[in-house]
Amino acid sequence: MSVDVDAPRTSLTPTADEVFTAHLGGKLSVVGTVPLATAHDLAVAYTPGVARVSSAIAEDPSLARTHTWASRLVVVVSDGTAVLGLGDIGPRAALPVMEGKSALFKAFAGLDSIPLVLDTTDVDEIVETLVRLRPSYGAVNLEDISAPRCFELEAKLVEALDCPVMHDDQHGTAIVVLAALRGAVTALRRELATLRVVVSGAGAAGVACTEILLAAGITDVTVLDSRGIVHAARGDLNPVKTGLAARTNPAGRTGGLDEALAGADVFLGLSSGEVSETQVASMAAGSIVFALSNPTPEVHPDTAGRHAAVVATGRSDFPNQINNVLAFPGVFRGALDCGARRITEGMKLAAAGAIAAVAAAELSTTRIVPSATDPRVAPAVAAAVAAAARAEGIAAR
Amino acid sequence: MSVDVDAPRTSLTPTADEVFTAHLGGKLSVVGTVPLATAHDLAVAYTPGVARVSSAIAEDPSLARTHTWASRLVVVVSDGTAVLGLGDIGPRAALPVMEGKSALFKAFAGLDSIPLVLDTTDVDEIVETLVRLRPSYGAVNLEDISAPRCFELEAKLVEALDCPVMHDDQHGTAIVVLAALRGAVTALRRELATLRVVVSGAGAAGVACTEILLAAGITDVTVLDSRGIVHAARGDLNPVKTGLAARTNPAGRTGGLDEALAGADVFLGLSSGEVSETQVASMAAGSIVFALSNPTPEVHPDTAGRHAAVVATGRSDFPNQINNVLAFPGVFRGALDCGARRITEGMKLAAAGAIAAVAAAELSTTRIVPSATDPRVAPAVAAAVAAAARAEGIAAR
Repeated sequence: MSVDVDAPRTSLTPTADEVFTAHLGGKLSVVGTVPLATAHDLAVAYTPGVARVSSAIAEDPSLARTHTWASRLVVVVSDGTAVLGLGDIGPRAALPVMEGKSALFKAFAGLDSIPLVLDTTDVDEIVETLVRLRPSYGAVNLEDISAPRCFELEAKLVEALDCPVMHDDQHGTAIVVLAALRGAVTALRRELATLRVVVSGAGAAGVACTEILLAAGITDVTVLDSRGIVHAARGDLNPVKTGLAARTNPAGRTGGLDEALAGADVFLGLSSGEVSETQVASMAAGSIVFALSNPTPEVHPDTAGRHAAVVATGRSDFPNQINNVLAFPGVFRGALDCGARRITEGMKLAAAGAIAAVAAAELSTTRIVPSATDPRVAPAVAAAVAAAARAEGIAAR
Repeated sequence: MSVDVDAPRTSLTPTADEVFTAHLGGKLSVVGTVPLATAHDLAVAYTPGVARVSSAIAEDPSLARTHTWASRLVVVVSDGTAVLGLGDIGPRAALPVMEGKSALFKAFAGLDSIPLVLDTTDVDEIVETLVRLRPSYGAVNLEDISAPRCFELEAKLVEALDCPVMHDDQHGTAIVVLAALRGAVTALRRELATLRVVVSGAGAAGVACTEILLAAGITDVTVLDSRGIVHAARGDLNPVKTGLAARTNPAGRTGGLDEALAGADVFLGLSSGEVSETQVASMAAGSIVFALSNPTPEVHPDTAGRHAAVVATGRSDFPNQINNVLAFPGVFRGALDCGARRITEGMKLAAAGAIAAVAAAELSTTRIVPSATDPRVAPAVAAAVAAAARAEGIAAR
């Protein structure tokens, strides 16, 4: 049966009423964890009792980790410049997304999290703001920040802050894509390293996915932006794309999607550019298509499925949903559990491996990743990330 | 029976063990208010459902008030420069106090609140930081910021932000002091306007208390700083104290506490300077002593009680506790309920009146204010504050 991707799907797609009712008053609440009903309660949690704790932290700053909430608090930071598929809608309109993210941190990883949406799009001002607020939180999840600013912002924050920082649109996506690709090749009894991969999109997700695929040992990756294949001879590349050109496209292909896809094993769609059935059919036998544009995939999964051996999308109403929620709660939980000062490529690879391992038990070509709500995933990811950090010697405990 | 103010009071003063155990892991937690267990839940609260809400806010920014948590979120902001009686212990050591404050906002006024502690003491940098974060919150509670910086910071924030801003060490204290003084004069069948008041301390609380007492109609207020009575002829006054000198001390007194207290009706202690029994005895008959220094009052309540008709302290283990928690939860709740863009002197006077009204039913010289945990107070304060804002025409609804 064919599926109309533009029509609401009754069982899974919520109605507008349902969505707006759920969002009334926002989606987060702060609660105290100590009783505050009696004078004695106040004397313990507030004055005069709290003075003992403040004095102790003043004498031994390491006690801030154990006796305040900051060390386990993730700030979800956005300037609202690249919100979902909606673009630059500003910080106020971005806030519901950030609230959802904070709620997911609690639901899947038990982490406290607050959204901080910023009324500036200046990279240095965002860095400066988070540096000033550093005593208030334990880790930074960047979200929905436009490329190429997001690359510069993340790099500067990693430099400026002594805590985990991750732009989820880049690395959360990359981790889950790699996990899904591992699942797909295992289901197809193929080898990751031999794949020829085409990445459509050189924004936040495209760049990070390319990086993690290279780090995972795939040697033949070709990236396309809106002007076609990224290659060194092009004169219109920004510094990030120039860097990509130097490490991708080993066959020196030029042209567009036709040229890139002919004979390729994997299509990874991270832009909204359409892919035709003819283009999918031109790929190698047993191909893998990840059409992740949301809400409308680059190619309809049914169409792709007539030629590809595995098809995945970003949607919950088709099989093989690539959803960042499989990665970010566990990645931050693991990094905070072990006191890691940063999130390394090794920790991201470990996270992808953990997601793939959870999927392994029920693996098939229509189940290459676990369900987005599988409660086993975040603890497995957290443990793998913490172990990787310890192995790299960047964990405090 | 005499009370040793320096000894722990078993029934009310918590032990160190009790305090440190209560603070393990911090005192706050963020929870999601929508279910996140199934794919459908995620589709409502996160993608794709949340995109509808973000789009709606992008089209009509007023929806951010009703469909995010920001409009009812109070940020408790400190740079850690004047924490309780501990002084400049920095933002990390200040955090337990701010967590306690956030927890009290929820417990007494049902408001969500998060602490933001800042690693800068530069007034303009703090203002700039809060301006950049403006889309993230609905009101600013400044806390434990040293004088005279706190005056400049509050004034600049009120100018820069279109939302309620209040430095609680100033105005929360002032509101409760005025409420308590109303209670005392009612219990003593005296008139507020005829009182001769001595304020010891020209820091955050001293200045704000002086302002509210003048606004309440008291004409004879004399302020002392560490060098004695504040009067216009002194050459060592900062601009804030110069302003005080112009509106206080109508009799033109000079000298120190001896000269100020002789014949005075009210002593309001807001510094740690000691007051002798002789000095209390020199006050007018039927005097009122508020010895609010914490944890050690300026004069022992039993000593003061031998001469004064009413004695109050900041401590929960003596009668008549002057505790800011009687004011700040209701003040912010009222201001946010009615969409007030600022907190005016009229709203503060209304808050004091509401606290005094709750106390009126059980009023006596040892019960001039309600108990700090009286659940009737915050709703009464909120209603009075919102009504005052509406009457002044500064409420949005």
